[in-house]
Amino acid sequence: MLKALCMRLAHLGLSAHSVFDMTTPPIASPDLLIASAGPGRFPTVDAICWVARSNGARVLLLTTQPGNGSPASVIAHVPGQTMADDQDGGGVGLGGSRALLPMGSLYEGALFVLFEMVVFRLGEVLDESPEAVRSRHTNLE
Amino acid sequence: MLKALCMRLAHLGLSAHSVFDMTTPPIASPDLLIASAGPGRFPTVDAICWVARSNGARVLLLTTQPGNGSPASVIAHVPGQTMADDQDGGGVGLGGSRALLPMGSLYEGALFVLFEMVVFRLGEVLDESPEAVRSRHTNLE
Amino acid sequence: MLKALCMRLAHLGLSAHSVFDMTTPPIASPDLLIASAGPGRFPTVDAICWVARSNGARVLLLTTQPGNGSPASVIAHVPGQTMADDQDGGGVGLGGSRALLPMGSLYEGALFVLFEMVVFRLGEVLDESPEAVRSRHTNLE
Amino acid sequence: MLKALCMRLAHLGLSAHSVFDMTTPPIASPDLLIASAGPGRFPTVDAICWVARSNGARVLLLTTQPGNGSPASVIAHVPGQTMADDQDGGGVGLGGSRALLPMGSLYEGALFVLFEMVVFRLGEVLDESPEAVRSRHTNLE
Repeated sequence: MLKALCMRLAHLGLSAHSVFDMTTPPIASPDLLIASAGPGRFPTVDAICWVARSNGARVLLLTTQPGNGSPASVIAHVPGQTMADDQDGGGVGLGGSRALLPMGSLYEGALFVLFEMVVFRLGEVLDESPEAVRSRHTNLE
Repeated sequence: MLKALCMRLAHLGLSAHSVFDMTTPPIASPDLLIASAGPGRFPTVDAICWVARSNGARVLLLTTQPGNGSPASVIAHVPGQTMADDQDGGGVGLGGSRALLPMGSLYEGALFVLFEMVVFRLGEVLDESPEAVRSRHTNLE
Repeated sequence: MLKALCMRLAHLGLSAHSVFDMTTPPIASPDLLIASAGPGRFPTVDAICWVARSNGARVLLLTTQPGNGSPASVIAHVPGQTMADDQDGGGVGLGGSRALLPMGSLYEGALFVLFEMVVFRLGEVLDESPEAVRSRHTNLE
Repeated sequence: MLKALCMRLAHLGLSAHSVFDMTTPPIASPDLLIASAGPGRFPTVDAICWVARSNGARVLLLTTQPGNGSPASVIAHVPGQTMADDQDGGGVGLGGSRALLPMGSLYEGALFVLFEMVVFRLGEVLDESPEAVRSRHTNLE
């Protein structure tokens, strides 16, 4: 979902890059790193957040488990089941049955909706016309 | 979305691979290639579908625009706006306003829901317990 | 090897993008697409070359098999064994023995050396100091 | 280079996976993680090595800077200039001139040769015929 968000931010004319892409520049102030760790923390996500902060960037972490001590500067609480709690009560399903949205699926769906809302609002704020956004979509596909 | 589906199919214990991954084996009969082309056809998707078919594999194409002459063996019609028709009537938005789900977003959201439903049903058919599925999720993250 | 080249071109301050990255913009004149197809042609490479040309871009194809009718505008002949001819005479190995550099390895090594030479020369032509190049390397690793 | 190695190991019939691929299974004993950190350590490489070790896997780290306290279980010293020391003496170049192989290029080239040698020797040990290796190369390209 973060890759899809990155594409839409680039469509808006922003300088957006995915971590680990070949052309990603070094991060520095006042850049913003957007990270996601549904269950709270992952070793690799922690490492990237720490690198970004130590280079002066701001870090936003999306998670269902705030208060877990992540090195992010801002933590956005996206409520939803993930692998951290999908075994507590049978997940999103009927009592005792197979969960309709197992593991982190509910969280992924929540991110999809959240990112569409953010991109919609950003398009208004930046006053980017739908035509301008569309013209930035790649034709190499 | 196809990458997420591929992960979930692997979680179910199936031999699933993403095109262009380093470890993807050659395709042959009776393999199934699942492709997606919201607006109907892309040159690269056509090329991959053609290679798969000429090597004896079956090809399922997901699209909002059936009847476009794709080389797929089966075409699944997923109704939804894409870049093929997002400029016809202002997209999914109020009259004349900015579309809430521009370009291919609606189609991507539809695929998300569809794939979750398919994976849920497959889990039942294959009788894979949630615990078995969960145990196949990588810890390298 | 093309991904490594793309990184080095970005280090030189050029606007370089990998095909299929999330942030890759549409291609147009006077952009240059650099493609590689050791054995001559691949369906996906042909498709991307064709899209690039039909959008006004120039296309450079690196291959060991020139004269194969690729849609590229310029074809650079990089001599070297690939999967197109590694079964002719035992490959790069002693008579009858296992090839030291099987399949496309020799071609990949040749591209490595070629790209380093190109990047070295480009650095001189663009007068980019080693310090400037180095400062563009990502710290998110 | 690690991705190319991963492909060749899969060609040899081994169960090989790239970290961050969609279909990568969880790591456990007696799996082997092969990591590379030319300059010695990277936060993300450290994190992955640590996860692998705490799940019972063995970890091999390739680096030009042994003795840097990496969490790997075995460290292979690949001599060669990287970004850790490319500014000490002008790099691989004539006195005072631009380095022919700047930053980590020399290390990357050394890995290329090393991996080809390892794959050649592995092919002999596993007694995998060139034809069998070749038949595992993907046709989806």
